[in-house]
Amino acid sequence: MQAVCGGKVVARVMMYGERQLIDRIAAACRRDDDAALLRAIGDDCAVLAPAAGSRLLLSVDTLVEGVHFDLGWHPPRLLGRKAAAVNISDIAAMAGEPRYALLSLSLPAAIPEGEVDELLAGFLEALARWRVALIGGDTVASPAGMSLTVTIIGECRAHDPVYRSGARPGDTVLVGGPLGLAAAGLEICRAGGRDDPAYGELCRAHLDPTPQVELGLVLGASGVVAAMQDISDGLATDLAHICRQSGVGAVVEAGLLPVHPQLAAYAALRGISPLEWMLSGGEDYRLLCTCAAEAVPGLVALAREKCGCELYPVGGIVAGAGVRLENGDGGREIGFSGYDHFRTRPGKG
Amino acid sequence: MQAVCGGKVVARVMMYGERQLIDRIAAACRRDDDAALLRAIGDDCAVLAPAAGSRLLLSVDTLVEGVHFDLGWHPPRLLGRKAAAVNISDIAAMAGEPRYALLSLSLPAAIPEGEVDELLAGFLEALARWRVALIGGDTVASPAGMSLTVTIIGECRAHDPVYRSGARPGDTVLVGGPLGLAAAGLEICRAGGRDDPAYGELCRAHLDPTPQVELGLVLGASGVVAAMQDISDGLATDLAHICRQSGVGAVVEAGLLPVHPQLAAYAALRGISPLEWMLSGGEDYRLLCTCAAEAVPGLVALAREKCGCELYPVGGIVAGAGVRLENGDGGREIGFSGYDHFRTRPGKG
Repeated sequence: MQAVCGGKVVARVMMYGERQLIDRIAAACRRDDDAALLRAIGDDCAVLAPAAGSRLLLSVDTLVEGVHFDLGWHPPRLLGRKAAAVNISDIAAMAGEPRYALLSLSLPAAIPEGEVDELLAGFLEALARWRVALIGGDTVASPAGMSLTVTIIGECRAHDPVYRSGARPGDTVLVGGPLGLAAAGLEICRAGGRDDPAYGELCRAHLDPTPQVELGLVLGASGVVAAMQDISDGLATDLAHICRQSGVGAVVEAGLLPVHPQLAAYAALRGISPLEWMLSGGEDYRLLCTCAAEAVPGLVALAREKCGCELYPVGGIVAGAGVRLENGDGGREIGFSGYDHFRTRPGKG
Repeated sequence: MQAVCGGKVVARVMMYGERQLIDRIAAACRRDDDAALLRAIGDDCAVLAPAAGSRLLLSVDTLVEGVHFDLGWHPPRLLGRKAAAVNISDIAAMAGEPRYALLSLSLPAAIPEGEVDELLAGFLEALARWRVALIGGDTVASPAGMSLTVTIIGECRAHDPVYRSGARPGDTVLVGGPLGLAAAGLEICRAGGRDDPAYGELCRAHLDPTPQVELGLVLGASGVVAAMQDISDGLATDLAHICRQSGVGAVVEAGLLPVHPQLAAYAALRGISPLEWMLSGGEDYRLLCTCAAEAVPGLVALAREKCGCELYPVGGIVAGAGVRLENGDGGREIGFSGYDHFRTRPGKG
């Protein structure tokens, strides 16, 4: 997930890269010989099969004030909804049904009661919408700023989870909608333009994202999707995850990326290309998947018919490694160029 | 869990009581008609039965720098162990086997790499000791201070989980060891006495607590334990939880509380009674349970034989409500007098 206050955080000396840290943790973990643990670290969720016929998906995410959100412009009700939504999106990313949530809430002592009410109301509203039961949690005092950690538990019943590791050379890469809206929306909110109707969709993508739960279930049930995840760190980074887990490379065709009209308008106003937002902005929470080229027309029609949702082919899987952008002038490597919590990015910040 | 820097936090104006906040969340949650959700909010863990024969226990806890720990005296390796231990204790509290953990780590940018290494090493060391697999997590930047949120998943296979709600009038109340060590140990650490061998057990109870996993399993398998939980907020508060969930009252006999010799020595040095630490200090992570009076001798013998652990009868369950301390001079109500993250306590702080 992208940081809303990146400038403040990435300006310091960073000791760790986020992926490096995750790699260290993953390397330190042994799975032992636990037949019930189907997947551990390295995908959107861990997958447990505690008993025959049951597959549980588990994931955890933390939102930190001053890093992931700014209460100066983020209404607490929408923040509560977002805390649920971004976690539910991890379940959607594996074609699961979200079922249960645990919430750990760190609250500064001076927070107004009304803000906590709104935050909780928004969180519970989103859980209700996706039929998720809150089953536990923790509340602690925070010496500085609010943070929310949500553990989400989902289930795969009628079909198998879809992992990041199934992409094969020749597959087409598809995305579940136009990208880059949330990144531009963040910039607009930060500049005080939250209520400008010309960019309502962009701001809403940042403030109140919608996970693609139904689409994930339809894609999982189709049986033809080879690899899937949700786009939280940007297409470039998240496609690189699929490539690394699958042992393949990918090519993204810049000309195939759908451009949302509000994003095009805002980019024109700023006098820049919307491409960087679409590739590396993050917080899209659109699904990213691959399937064999011959299955694409059927899958696109299925998504349209069952979810009223457009799937966009944006590139393909190739042998090799890395993610390459083709934009008509020779292309460039773009893998892992999204937001990293613990590392500065050249040319950014 | 008690706060290590309570003075800093509780000095502010508090809008919420922690229990009040949890009650609000619990009230807002509907369980719907989900046959797989055996328990939600209100016990040490939520309990799921995702398939026949499988009972999963889930819990989440957050440790916040400046609230729950102070890196000025808490070695990062022991802090990592503690983050695992206090969560594993929630599984022990329901007579479960700890199985899986998810870790969400918020790290300030300037933290030295060596500290993160030690923290992770300690966390993984504790997981290995109790045969828990780390299956997922999240790492985020923190603008101020470190925090660790651990989600723990346990399982009950051979016997049912033991809930807080089963206590009956006439039951005896037992605790899994002397109490108050961690609270006194915190005071000693804060005063710079961490390495004083005269109080090594007290400091270790605060810095490096040991959950009673084996004892929990033995008590659960005995079939005679009516209610159980672990003591994290102090005997007075945690027994009040059992009473409230069971619709009963309890009496604690001050004279029956076992006093650890190092606690007695430290209290003598300070010229005060150790009673307040034993009743309300918190972070004991000893098990607290009730059983019918006639089952006590057998249970005490079983704990001694199977775990080398002493169970101490310290009082009884009565009809009514609340927790009363009997100390030879008429007694007093002590329920819910442990640490509350969002409320100042009269006479403390």
